[in-house]
Amino acid sequence: MNEISPTPKPPYYAVIFTSHRTSGDNGYNKMANKMVELASQQPGFLGVESARETVGITVSYWKNLQSIKDWKHNLEHLEAQKNGKDIWYSVFKTRICKVESDHDFSI
Amino acid sequence: MNEISPTPKPPYYAVIFTSHRTSGDNGYNKMANKMVELASQQPGFLGVESARETVGITVSYWKNLQSIKDWKHNLEHLEAQKNGKDIWYSVFKTRICKVESDHDFSI
Repeated sequence: MNEISPTPKPPYYAVIFTSHRTSGDNGYNKMANKMVELASQQPGFLGVESARETVGITVSYWKNLQSIKDWKHNLEHLEAQKNGKDIWYSVFKTRICKVESDHDFSI
Repeated sequence: MNEISPTPKPPYYAVIFTSHRTSGDNGYNKMANKMVELASQQPGFLGVESARETVGITVSYWKNLQSIKDWKHNLEHLEAQKNGKDIWYSVFKTRICKVESDHDFSI
């Protein structure tokens, strides 16, 4: 989760999930790790990048819109989404994007 | 920089910049703050969200591809980009995306 995802040549899709957490863990970290593991097993999953300071940003990458839709409706993920709204997040925003181009740099 | 950007109704564009820093500040934080301030003055700028743990993720939002191109070629930004490659980053990846849909939640 802490690496830059080695995504394929565009086009592909990204889900940008930006959030503010409520206070206390309340099972959040365990669920977050489980969701990353589960997402990575889904068809069309290409990678995920995540960091949190005041705001949390998680970007997951997917082959196409169908793979995003399928993941959104995964049963365990639906339960996590419900707890997200009920317990873990005070605010969040989800953006579905088509990655049109990319550029790499490394020393 | 720590808030969730109140972007307009899609479509609009996002630049996802994911990076690993080299060790030491070396003027990085001063430049980063200056670039956020400068970017926010550019035509077509819609917002920016940023967090860093092991990996750093900065997502900036723009009205269209032209506004991204103009910002990329801004003279002060070009200098920051050069220092980014020479000094501040060991690895980075830039992804240009079209935001096709979004969804908000708040308690």
